[in-house]
Amino acid sequence: MLVLGIDPGTALTGYGAVRGEPFGSLALVECGVIRTSARDRLPVRLREIYEDVSALIERLQPDALAVEDVFYSRNVRTTVVLGHARGVILLAGEQAHLPVHEYPPAEIKKAVVGTGAATKEQVQFMVTRLLRLRTTPSPSDAADAAAVALAHIMSARVPRLGDIEHAATLTLGVRPVRGRKV
Amino acid sequence: MLVLGIDPGTALTGYGAVRGEPFGSLALVECGVIRTSARDRLPVRLREIYEDVSALIERLQPDALAVEDVFYSRNVRTTVVLGHARGVILLAGEQAHLPVHEYPPAEIKKAVVGTGAATKEQVQFMVTRLLRLRTTPSPSDAADAAAVALAHIMSARVPRLGDIEHAATLTLGVRPVRGRKV
Repeated sequence: MLVLGIDPGTALTGYGAVRGEPFGSLALVECGVIRTSARDRLPVRLREIYEDVSALIERLQPDALAVEDVFYSRNVRTTVVLGHARGVILLAGEQAHLPVHEYPPAEIKKAVVGTGAATKEQVQFMVTRLLRLRTTPSPSDAADAAAVALAHIMSARVPRLGDIEHAATLTLGVRPVRGRKV
Repeated sequence: MLVLGIDPGTALTGYGAVRGEPFGSLALVECGVIRTSARDRLPVRLREIYEDVSALIERLQPDALAVEDVFYSRNVRTTVVLGHARGVILLAGEQAHLPVHEYPPAEIKKAVVGTGAATKEQVQFMVTRLLRLRTTPSPSDAADAAAVALAHIMSARVPRLGDIEHAATLTLGVRPVRGRKV
């Protein structure tokens, strides 16, 4: 399974393509950043991000897109502009008929480091270690994007309660009842 | 000049195409809404909005796109999701090589009604009146989108200080000096 992880941003959008299986080995295929200039108008920057992500999908042919969810900064304006960038990234994935998964920052940290309160440095350390790299991918946006891809691959290692219940529904044709003994 | 006004939203995106000149007559060419289903995932809804806006541009061949700026609601999540929808709309305009203009809600109200504190009903009343319609466009998102297009056309009626200074710079080859006598 090849997963293209994306860490969205208007100035720097990180990307990291990771190949791996939930219980198998993991390998970094490629990572980097898409840069746009603050001197350009927002529509121009959005077009560049959209075209570059579309070109990455076309070239790398991933099986899934994993996109970091919005980080709610104190500056609402920054968060909303980030939403614009995420919009065109989700669009690029959908147009390529890829399953698009969204992961909140805490979930990515939990999947990669083991705790949702992990620092940026801990995430980068684990990305470098899990992918057996000599140095941490730079800039950090590229490492963060690889972390999103890793989070998607590794989240499949731990079956979720919802998945088990869904499987039970499919197999038994009944919905498990919650909150009372049956 | 034909202006396509857009009032972005994930569930309902209003559009209104208005033909007019800053000091000439105004006419509504077409208005309506793009609806997406809350049952669909966000990437699917973004693709629908993007494709529908792109198709409108292709069919109507406007000279400019005027998009309402984000309304900062108390629910930050709502505002951020709205940012995603705006992102794919700005992208559609940019890809069609259209000038894309963004107007904050208060500026639209000021241009159409005369005050930035106008109510929704006052805006709809003036849209109906300025475009000489028998009834107010419905749903209100369509009327709001027509208001954005009107705001763009009518904002050209009042030259802005910046424009005058810019014209002075072009004519005289000098930048006007502010804040001190020369």
